Amino acid sequence: MTTDTFPKAVSKQVKIGETTVTIQGIAKGSGMVAPDMATMLAFITTDARIGHDALQTLVSSTVETSFNSITVDSDTSTSDMVLAFATGAAANDKVRDVNDPSFADFRRAFADTMQELAIMIVKDGEGLSKLIQIDVSGGVDSHSARRIGLAVANSPLVKTAISGEDANWGRIVMAVGKSGEPANRDTLSVGIGGHWIARNGMLLADYEEAPIQKHLHERHVTIQIDLGLGNGAARIWGCDLTHGYVDINGSYRS
Amino acid sequence: MTTDTFPKAVSKQVKIGETTVTIQGIAKGSGMVAPDMATMLAFITTDARIGHDALQTLVSSTVETSFNSITVDSDTSTSDMVLAFATGAAANDKVRDVNDPSFADFRRAFADTMQELAIMIVKDGEGLSKLIQIDVSGGVDSHSARRIGLAVANSPLVKTAISGEDANWGRIVMAVGKSGEPANRDTLSVGIGGHWIARNGMLLADYEEAPIQKHLHERHVTIQIDLGLGNGAARIWGCDLTHGYVDINGSYRS
Repeated sequence: MTTDTFPKAVSKQVKIGETTVTIQGIAKGSGMVAPDMATMLAFITTDARIGHDALQTLVSSTVETSFNSITVDSDTSTSDMVLAFATGAAANDKVRDVNDPSFADFRRAFADTMQELAIMIVKDGEGLSKLIQIDVSGGVDSHSARRIGLAVANSPLVKTAISGEDANWGRIVMAVGKSGEPANRDTLSVGIGGHWIARNGMLLADYEEAPIQKHLHERHVTIQIDLGLGNGAARIWGCDLTHGYVDINGSYRS
Repeated sequence: MTTDTFPKAVSKQVKIGETTVTIQGIAKGSGMVAPDMATMLAFITTDARIGHDALQTLVSSTVETSFNSITVDSDTSTSDMVLAFATGAAANDKVRDVNDPSFADFRRAFADTMQELAIMIVKDGEGLSKLIQIDVSGGVDSHSARRIGLAVANSPLVKTAISGEDANWGRIVMAVGKSGEPANRDTLSVGIGGHWIARNGMLLADYEEAPIQKHLHERHVTIQIDLGLGNGAARIWGCDLTHGYVDINGSYRS
C-alpha cells in the first residue's frame, strides 16, 4: 500500500575538478502508514568516484538537516531507509576526503539533493493542505533548536491552527514550552511568514494581522521562533493536520 | 472558551475511624484549547481533618496515576491545575500521617476520586468517539511503562486506527518502538480488548479477529502491552483522533 501522490526525484550536475558528475535521487513516502513495509525510501546515486568512507561521512552529515528534519505525523516507521551509491563511472580523481576543496560543489549539491527529496516527502504528507517550515534560532545549541522545531511541527494544535489559517501564536508558544528544552518567555520571539508577532515575550503593539493572514492562505507557511538564548539554530519541515489525514488513516479498511 | 460537553463531578463518603467524611471533586477540561486560560482544572474538597503535609503527600502520590496518566492530544497547557482542600469540618481525629491505618479507606477513595475525574476529562476529549485505556506491563520500571503507554496513546496512527475500528497491532508495535524506551521484539506481546494478538513477538496462529472486532465497535477500547522485560506497569487513558478534533481545532474562527 502506498499513499504517495506524485513521483519524487532530483537530478543535479556539478564538477569535481574538471570532471562533470551527476547526482540523482529518488524517494518514496508520505506517511508512516504501513508498518510491514518500508514507508520512506530514498536512493541517491552518482557517477562520481568517491571512497566509501567519504560517501558515508557525506550521508551521515547531511541526513540530519534533511530526512531527520522532516515530520508528517510524528510516527516513525521501522523501515525508513536512505541509501547512497557512487558508481565511479565518471573519470574524476577519486575523492577520499569530504573536505577536499575540489569536492565543495559536490558536497553542496549532495546536501541540496537530500534536502529537496526530504521536502518532497513532506509536501506529499498524508492529507496535507500546507507545507510548514519552522525556523528556530537563538537556542542553547542546535540539538535543542531541532527538538523545539519538531515539538512545534508535531503539535496537533499548531497543525490544526495552520490548517484553519489562524495566526495562533499562543499555540506555538505552548509547543515550545512542552518540548522540555531551555526556553525563556521573556526572550522568546515568534513570527509567521517573516512577520514578528511577539518579540521578547511581548505581543508587538504594531503587529498587523493582514499580511500574516495573507501568508496563511498560501500553501507554504513559515514559522519563525527565536529563543534569544544562544546560537543554536534548526530548520524543520512539517505539514498541517486535516480531515484528509483522518480519512487516510482511519477509514483505510472501509 | 470551553469545549467541555458535560459536567465532571465525583462524590464519595468514607470513614476515618468512626467519623464519616465526604470527598468531592469537580473538574473542567477537554483539550488544550485556550493557552491564555486554564484548560484543565480539578478541585477536590473534603470535610475531613487532615494536616497540610499529609494532604500534599496524598495529592502528589495520586496525581501520577490519575491526571498525569491521561492525554487527549499530547499538547500540554501551561495552566493545568489540581487543587485539594480539606476544611476540617468533620470531627475525625486529625490525620497527620497518610500511612495511618484508619486513613486507608480515605486514601483509596481519594485516589479513586482523582482517577475518576481524570478519566471524565479524557471521555470529553475533543471530538473523540472512543476512550482508549492502555495497560502496559513487563516494562523495566514503571516510569518506562508510563512513557510507552503515553507514546501509544499519543500516536496519530494508533488513534486513527482505533477511530476506524481496525485491530492494527502493527501501529501499536511501532509506537512502542518510537517511545525510545527499552523494548524487545522477541518478548513483546500485544492485545486488544483482553485478547492477545501477538505473544513474544509472534502473531498468534489461533488469533481470532471476530471478538476483537466486536470490542472495537464499543466506546471504551482497551489495549494490552506486555514488554516481557521486568515488573514495570502503567495504565494510561487516551482517546481516538477524529474529524471532530480537526473541526474543533482548525475551524474555530469560522
